[in-house]
Amino acid sequence: MALLETGKYVPGSVPSGVNPDIASERQTASFSVEKLTAWLDGGAEHTRIRRAVVEAIECDPVFSRENQYFQSQNERYEAAVRKAVHLQKKMREMGWTENGPEHKYIHRALAGDVAFLLHRIFMRSISTLGSDKQVAKWIPLATQYQLIGSYAQTELGHGTYLQGLETTAVFDITTQEFILNTPKISAMKWWPGDMGRSATHTVVFAQLYVHGKCYGVHPFIVQIRSLQDHSLCPGVTAGDIGPKMNFEHTDNGFLMLQNVRVPKENMLNKFCEVQPDGTYVRWGSQKINYFTMTTVRVSVLSDEVVVPLMKACTIAVRYAAVRRQSKLRPGEEEAKILDYQTQQEKLLPQLAAAYAFHLITDYLQKLFDRGYREIQRKNFDTLPELHAFSSGFKALISQYCTSAVDICLRACGGHGYSLLSGLPSLYTRILASCIYEGENTVLLLQTARFLVKCFMAASTGQPVPPSVTYLAAVKPGKCPAKNKLDFLSPDIYTEAYRHTAARLVSSTAAKLQDLIQSGVKKHDAWNQCTVQLAQAAKAHCHYITVKNFAETVEKLKTQAGIQKIMKHLCDLFALHGIFSNAGVFLHDGYLSGAQMDMVTASYLDLLPVIRKDAVPLVDAFDFTDKSLNSALGSYDGHVYQRLYEWAQNSPTNKQMSPAYERYLKPLLHNKLSKL
Amino acid sequence: MALLETGKYVPGSVPSGVNPDIASERQTASFSVEKLTAWLDGGAEHTRIRRAVVEAIECDPVFSRENQYFQSQNERYEAAVRKAVHLQKKMREMGWTENGPEHKYIHRALAGDVAFLLHRIFMRSISTLGSDKQVAKWIPLATQYQLIGSYAQTELGHGTYLQGLETTAVFDITTQEFILNTPKISAMKWWPGDMGRSATHTVVFAQLYVHGKCYGVHPFIVQIRSLQDHSLCPGVTAGDIGPKMNFEHTDNGFLMLQNVRVPKENMLNKFCEVQPDGTYVRWGSQKINYFTMTTVRVSVLSDEVVVPLMKACTIAVRYAAVRRQSKLRPGEEEAKILDYQTQQEKLLPQLAAAYAFHLITDYLQKLFDRGYREIQRKNFDTLPELHAFSSGFKALISQYCTSAVDICLRACGGHGYSLLSGLPSLYTRILASCIYEGENTVLLLQTARFLVKCFMAASTGQPVPPSVTYLAAVKPGKCPAKNKLDFLSPDIYTEAYRHTAARLVSSTAAKLQDLIQSGVKKHDAWNQCTVQLAQAAKAHCHYITVKNFAETVEKLKTQAGIQKIMKHLCDLFALHGIFSNAGVFLHDGYLSGAQMDMVTASYLDLLPVIRKDAVPLVDAFDFTDKSLNSALGSYDGHVYQRLYEWAQNSPTNKQMSPAYERYLKPLLHNKLSKL
Repeated sequence: MALLETGKYVPGSVPSGVNPDIASERQTASFSVEKLTAWLDGGAEHTRIRRAVVEAIECDPVFSRENQYFQSQNERYEAAVRKAVHLQKKMREMGWTENGPEHKYIHRALAGDVAFLLHRIFMRSISTLGSDKQVAKWIPLATQYQLIGSYAQTELGHGTYLQGLETTAVFDITTQEFILNTPKISAMKWWPGDMGRSATHTVVFAQLYVHGKCYGVHPFIVQIRSLQDHSLCPGVTAGDIGPKMNFEHTDNGFLMLQNVRVPKENMLNKFCEVQPDGTYVRWGSQKINYFTMTTVRVSVLSDEVVVPLMKACTIAVRYAAVRRQSKLRPGEEEAKILDYQTQQEKLLPQLAAAYAFHLITDYLQKLFDRGYREIQRKNFDTLPELHAFSSGFKALISQYCTSAVDICLRACGGHGYSLLSGLPSLYTRILASCIYEGENTVLLLQTARFLVKCFMAASTGQPVPPSVTYLAAVKPGKCPAKNKLDFLSPDIYTEAYRHTAARLVSSTAAKLQDLIQSGVKKHDAWNQCTVQLAQAAKAHCHYITVKNFAETVEKLKTQAGIQKIMKHLCDLFALHGIFSNAGVFLHDGYLSGAQMDMVTASYLDLLPVIRKDAVPLVDAFDFTDKSLNSALGSYDGHVYQRLYEWAQNSPTNKQMSPAYERYLKPLLHNKLSKL
Repeated sequence: MALLETGKYVPGSVPSGVNPDIASERQTASFSVEKLTAWLDGGAEHTRIRRAVVEAIECDPVFSRENQYFQSQNERYEAAVRKAVHLQKKMREMGWTENGPEHKYIHRALAGDVAFLLHRIFMRSISTLGSDKQVAKWIPLATQYQLIGSYAQTELGHGTYLQGLETTAVFDITTQEFILNTPKISAMKWWPGDMGRSATHTVVFAQLYVHGKCYGVHPFIVQIRSLQDHSLCPGVTAGDIGPKMNFEHTDNGFLMLQNVRVPKENMLNKFCEVQPDGTYVRWGSQKINYFTMTTVRVSVLSDEVVVPLMKACTIAVRYAAVRRQSKLRPGEEEAKILDYQTQQEKLLPQLAAAYAFHLITDYLQKLFDRGYREIQRKNFDTLPELHAFSSGFKALISQYCTSAVDICLRACGGHGYSLLSGLPSLYTRILASCIYEGENTVLLLQTARFLVKCFMAASTGQPVPPSVTYLAAVKPGKCPAKNKLDFLSPDIYTEAYRHTAARLVSSTAAKLQDLIQSGVKKHDAWNQCTVQLAQAAKAHCHYITVKNFAETVEKLKTQAGIQKIMKHLCDLFALHGIFSNAGVFLHDGYLSGAQMDMVTASYLDLLPVIRKDAVPLVDAFDFTDKSLNSALGSYDGHVYQRLYEWAQNSPTNKQMSPAYERYLKPLLHNKLSKL
């Protein structure tokens, strides 16, 4: 394209160098970005490994995500399979192994845009639910991709409530086989990934029937497609469930079974077995395996929830530093939108939340690793607490981060709405995390059940797990803060969160008791308290998050530069939470209206302070431009040039639309006259 | 497809008749659905006309939206153009005219999925900003589609802040032409609809320069594509801006101008003119035209914001009535999810909001029609108030309804995430309403500026517009409610909203004054108050919405059946708002903690009451299945069959993916062994 008259730029080419508006933001960082990155990674060595993995993946054109925003569902699927197959080769080449230190960075480097994730769940379920013999048979086949596995649990009619699954597996004693059926349409398997078009095998969860008696849900390995030509096996109907809000790369599938027979050995039987005569035998404890599944919930939080929020913050903050709009003061040049209080109040609390949730997921991961070791030693004491943790935090973090990404998107105005900003796909993808791995409301109510139980136990002096001992000490009280600076004390705000969480748990437990005592049936009483129970569970997890952030900052003493800015972020996260949920803090007078004004003042005062470090704080997340895949979020800040360059590659600009010849031309020529 | 063994159903076919789980919901309606529909439409005659339009559109296959969820951006664009062209024919056939009673229902019937919407804005801008001569020349050409128009205002670098536009139009006295240029990349026009691939002409907003002096932004008619072959005119670079979160059917475009000359007559000159010698003359008042633009903002609210929320509620409520999951009481069958308190608390407040916002947009429309007549009589007194109304309500309603649609989507769990549910596209489309026609934060601050001004005037005894006289009477006080039933009195809760809005305006005005008096410069002080100013503006609009809802219900006396359920919805809307924003009501002690418990109790008590009428309440919105275009929301409640039937039509099921031959087969056959 030719130079314009002014000669100042060549449209369509992104200038070299960095936009001065963002370069200046980096010159005044109050801390070392590189040190903060290393701290976030858990040490400089981890940073080095992560960068090496990202580099290896990104310089390989097979893994390119360049055209992602222009591709159809079919194209996305094909690319995901291509990448998954190529990844096997890449891992061999690079010497990366499943248990090596590089492995956890591969998913991040691919932004999860790859097939065969359910193949891994297929393998994991066989490893944990299968006998040694089954593991010995299937795991090598799966490892070498002599089959492609999926995991068929969810049905059209049943998601979170597993007991309600309707697929049946009837034991046929004469042939020593199980006969699997989809007895009605709501029993059709629906949503399993890798199943719509790829998988040859799947683990099917079905109600086991022997001699007409139902033994509940059990897992069966079922072949669904030919290994020779990929055609569907007899009795199998399967396909893709069609377009979704995101995950176009995944072939979420449906599966209907009509008298599909599998040999007796295909029921995963580490814990139970149907003997040849039809006798059903159960042994051992499944606890450790259920626990394995709850750890999945925790590990998903980092990759699929916190990292996407970090990306959204990076994009929105960098854009806000180069976008100039309107004037703050008459006569001056247009201001960076990051200088407006309202913009700071949109973005900076989300940035603080990204740090808060990074730290709490780190904490949870360590807690679960420890719990896992205990459980392997047959000590199941921590199981209820860990289950409550995984449920409540999954719900709180996924919900909070989804809203946060939404705020980042809207804070970029019209350009945030373009797919090229990267924000729409981050939003539509993180939104799914509120739904999968357990519906959030159901999960919060599981946590609430644990909290109410512990509260009742604590009230009668019985011992409770360490994370909930605070429930024993519910008492009226007042916050001792005297001025706005007092609210920058972690003791003050952590105590406010603690008090409020305890009050919400205790008052809801009291309501529940009152209802039951007044004659309402237990289950109805529970239902009538669920709105408040969910609120109490969220307050509990919010309190733990604030407490963990404050304690982590406290421990940072040796890294002064980082500690100072982390302290600001911790304060902001905590005060934002009080400001946004003022009602629960004011309700019993723990905070007075005057104190709430102090909270608000301290909260708003923090915004311009953190704003100074906003760009370095997102730089520290250390995302490459390729991993952000955003025209607005690149390191160099050349947003308009990149938007224009990328838009030109859109398929909508590749040819004249047939709409012209078919509709526009006849319309215009119909009555064409001289203008 | 064959019958399954059980013989109970033929998969893939949607049964005739209505799902008993939803049929039973309709038998117990406390009111006449037909009467409520007529009331919502403003009379039975309107209902009749609306249905006739919808029927005519939906039975015409050219307007079908059946494959919408499977189409690419190119296909969506082509379909939108096809529909727009066909619509001209249809209107002639049916005898519908631009000013006829049918016209306002056409957009609703097409769900806005049609091209040439900007062509209408092109015409409107010429009608209001052009001289009689210009109108006489261009409007007939546009009306007969001898050209296709667009409206090029927004640039890459400037949206809401129009003064900052950078496109230039320099008057060349020698040729009596304007020379239009895009002097830098941020000046490129970006986002105008119908411009990327369709338009032949557009109204370009550019900074007018005469003899080197800038006269500010003016509109110019510029031809951008040949009327013969649609090729770009010399000096014009234009194209499509690429994929967006929604609006795939619209060719939002970019436009770059390099020394493009247009004759002097192409500057729209109803209010100003450049004379042949370069003298710039301005006359008349533009007020009425700016006012026309603010009325667009109000009329958009109904079609693009309230109607989509009504659709989302219809889908989510109907689905919740047929989806059964888990058990409320042991031993019983699985419960409808609509019977869970948490589900009611998600959906019913959104349903109440749909009614509340339908009523307030109706009210605003009437207010603006009246204002328009006043202004035509040269009475501009109401202009500031109307401007404040249109800004604040656009922001409040678009933001509230966007969140509400999001809640409806998530409340449908996994199936809500499928495009086939219809909810993702409702969400991604309504989200845009938070951004276009003025960014919401900017709009709220315009309303806040008006409120602060009125508050200051009222404090010193000066007269203020009727909607804000309440600001004069800010005083401390306590809510007189003594028990939970008192909170079902509209006087009680309306007064609480009134008090709170007034307190937020007055306390923020006081903070602003304090800052200025302490020496902070006026503009900096304003910036430091903007978070709270935006909150105050929202509280004001929320108050007016509640008040209008309560007054409307009060007037309904003659229609008792409808009045009763509307009263419940009004109560729910009001109490939900207090419950969700408890902090601002508790802050100064207007409500005590004990009273907030009463609010909560009354609020939660309303849920099972309204739940009984939930399905009839969404039926009353009277959407056809085709207009909902949702596998979950159809009138008959056969959700699983429809999901399955629709999924089978997905392009992902139309052929074996090339991924099999290219990647999967080599992978599997590489080491194929006997299983």
